[in-house]
Amino acid sequence: MPDQAVRIGLLGRGTVGAAFEQLLGERAEAVQAATGQRPELSGVLTRSEGDFGEILGGSDVIVELMGGIDPAREHVLAALRAGKPVVTANKQLLAQHGDELFETAREFGVQLRFEAAVAGVIPIIRVIQESLGVIELSKVFGIVNGTTNFILSEMAATGAAYEDVLARAQELGYAEADPTEDVNGADAAAKMAILARLAFHTTVTLGEVSYEGIERVQPDDLAYAKELGLSLKLLGVAERREEGISVRVFPCFLYSGHPLAPVEGPFNAVMVEAPAITEVTMSGPGAGGVETASAVLGDLVSILAGEAPVHEARVDLPVVTDVTSSFYLHLEVADRPGVLAQIAQVLGDKEVSVKSVVQRGLGDDARLVMVVHECLESRFFAAVEQIGTLDFLRSPPRFIRVIEEEFV
Amino acid sequence: MPDQAVRIGLLGRGTVGAAFEQLLGERAEAVQAATGQRPELSGVLTRSEGDFGEILGGSDVIVELMGGIDPAREHVLAALRAGKPVVTANKQLLAQHGDELFETAREFGVQLRFEAAVAGVIPIIRVIQESLGVIELSKVFGIVNGTTNFILSEMAATGAAYEDVLARAQELGYAEADPTEDVNGADAAAKMAILARLAFHTTVTLGEVSYEGIERVQPDDLAYAKELGLSLKLLGVAERREEGISVRVFPCFLYSGHPLAPVEGPFNAVMVEAPAITEVTMSGPGAGGVETASAVLGDLVSILAGEAPVHEARVDLPVVTDVTSSFYLHLEVADRPGVLAQIAQVLGDKEVSVKSVVQRGLGDDARLVMVVHECLESRFFAAVEQIGTLDFLRSPPRFIRVIEEEFV
Repeated sequence: MPDQAVRIGLLGRGTVGAAFEQLLGERAEAVQAATGQRPELSGVLTRSEGDFGEILGGSDVIVELMGGIDPAREHVLAALRAGKPVVTANKQLLAQHGDELFETAREFGVQLRFEAAVAGVIPIIRVIQESLGVIELSKVFGIVNGTTNFILSEMAATGAAYEDVLARAQELGYAEADPTEDVNGADAAAKMAILARLAFHTTVTLGEVSYEGIERVQPDDLAYAKELGLSLKLLGVAERREEGISVRVFPCFLYSGHPLAPVEGPFNAVMVEAPAITEVTMSGPGAGGVETASAVLGDLVSILAGEAPVHEARVDLPVVTDVTSSFYLHLEVADRPGVLAQIAQVLGDKEVSVKSVVQRGLGDDARLVMVVHECLESRFFAAVEQIGTLDFLRSPPRFIRVIEEEFV
Repeated sequence: MPDQAVRIGLLGRGTVGAAFEQLLGERAEAVQAATGQRPELSGVLTRSEGDFGEILGGSDVIVELMGGIDPAREHVLAALRAGKPVVTANKQLLAQHGDELFETAREFGVQLRFEAAVAGVIPIIRVIQESLGVIELSKVFGIVNGTTNFILSEMAATGAAYEDVLARAQELGYAEADPTEDVNGADAAAKMAILARLAFHTTVTLGEVSYEGIERVQPDDLAYAKELGLSLKLLGVAERREEGISVRVFPCFLYSGHPLAPVEGPFNAVMVEAPAITEVTMSGPGAGGVETASAVLGDLVSILAGEAPVHEARVDLPVVTDVTSSFYLHLEVADRPGVLAQIAQVLGDKEVSVKSVVQRGLGDDARLVMVVHECLESRFFAAVEQIGTLDFLRSPPRFIRVIEEEFV
């Protein structure tokens, strides 16, 4: 039997789309050898050319790399309803409309693959869905935004201010002209919504993911951290809790022995934990045209090679928001007697226990830098609010979460 | 349509087999939810119980966890010939009889999966075969033996001698009573033969993998390394070279910024490099009953979920043995004039270029520790042989490879 040609309709030809088009051409022979099907680009939809209906009619598989919600959502749904498998790299689409998309894929019995939507070239989707698809996972967490990791790495290395490093990241192409969704944590939140859904087989909407960004991080937070052997990362964490699951994005200090601590620059890294596997850590470039295109190509090959299970949300787990964390707390205070005692009193009242405290400077420049043991976040926030009203505070309290293990 | 039961025949109930049996029972419902098929253990073959013919006849899938070549090879071949998919964790079987096994699987159109054979719970096989199956890979390398990584980590941390740390590893269960295959590099060589085959789509026999172990590593090599900010790892390296591929296992110094440098204790880590992906690094426990059983379960789920391409060796790449490396060279010499000049002369004659040299000690305890730039290994070995005959040498030269990037 002669090998068949399979027609690929490409939606979008930006950086990733163009890289995919080129990679597909270069690796067509390898795809044919691996799957028995020769891929052929049957049409490309861009803002200025192509007709979606025509492309859909003339394609066997749709590759959606246009980004955004509209019209990507309608196009992906139309393809699935026409029984045509879809590969997409569109994290916002999946995070905001996952239920609808997965439901449609299931209803029409077609594959929807999206490895490139999370953590670039790191095959975290495949590993969670296939290698670990039936293992009961405890936690999926990591660095899923390369822009912010680059900025934090540079701030730590150079001592420069957030604004200056952001400008440099934009020059180097690691941050977009409008970096809002990266730096405020929204991009990471979308990725964590997708990972949490797959890891825990439950519906997670983007609105259920609480997130904080890195805009408030000060160079002196990083300077203190360096002294303590800590590195600051923007972490996405999805974990099983007694009462359900928790899905959050926040800046966080890691001690130097932590597997995510050495991940620098625009790289991403994701860890998966479960009793049955202990842990697996995966790292690699978080973005880049050809790297993302490689992930798209891997999905396409899986579709051409045969069927795999369509993801199903199977259990209903509540998303809990008040979880426990350890915190670093930075206070600029007037240097006078009784200050530490008053602060300790407020923390004690809220059952927040101090692990270590360092007092720095004199007179107008006095600072208290402390780390508190893991406690319910609501208690800590209540304490901080009260501390913020004390008259000897010279600026609002600042805090950053800490992964406490081996914290000095 | 009611969900079907699928009958699993288990060969071997040692540590991994027993862990698999338990995990399969615990996760049967999740397997059924993911694949639509309810797994049932249909029989177990051990040394004292079970009949292979009966188990094969009464099973839909065979899981081979008995280890060793005979009778595992006959059983796996018989299962494939009977059209029954096989999951195995048997690296020696695959490394020594891969051609025969893959050929048989292809001929009978059945799946042969073996994620657990390499790097424990790290899903390196799936990632190379599926996510990166059509990407032209440049290099696959890493720490694929947990026993030796534990020993090297302990030696570096404590300064203890190889024999003492090996005894401790045996007490802790990280080394077997007969640790030969682990410490001499043979176990890692078998894994690298498998990885090289998959990464480069070519036949690699175990005999083509050159390997060295860690038995010759001295505490003072590690002490010098620590001073230089280096860590010592037993690396397996499979890489594309101009003339073909190279597949080797050897102890190697890594500078502290290398992604594999922080991998400590019985962990494994594997890196994959290619222009289209830059690099992906994966790490996790290299062994352990339940971890290995989890990898086996992942394979079983993939088989139950549907077909995937059977691996095919597609190109014929020669395995080249004389490659280039950078080396650390340790010489104990008499402390007299002209020693360094004579050594430099020998190295220069063989076109080996010295990058850095440190002279230590006085009189009877004089040492020269040098690092040479990357050069053809045959030239370096010829130089070392000649240096070994110089009359001022107080003991045979010792050398260890170095990954040169950022080496001080």
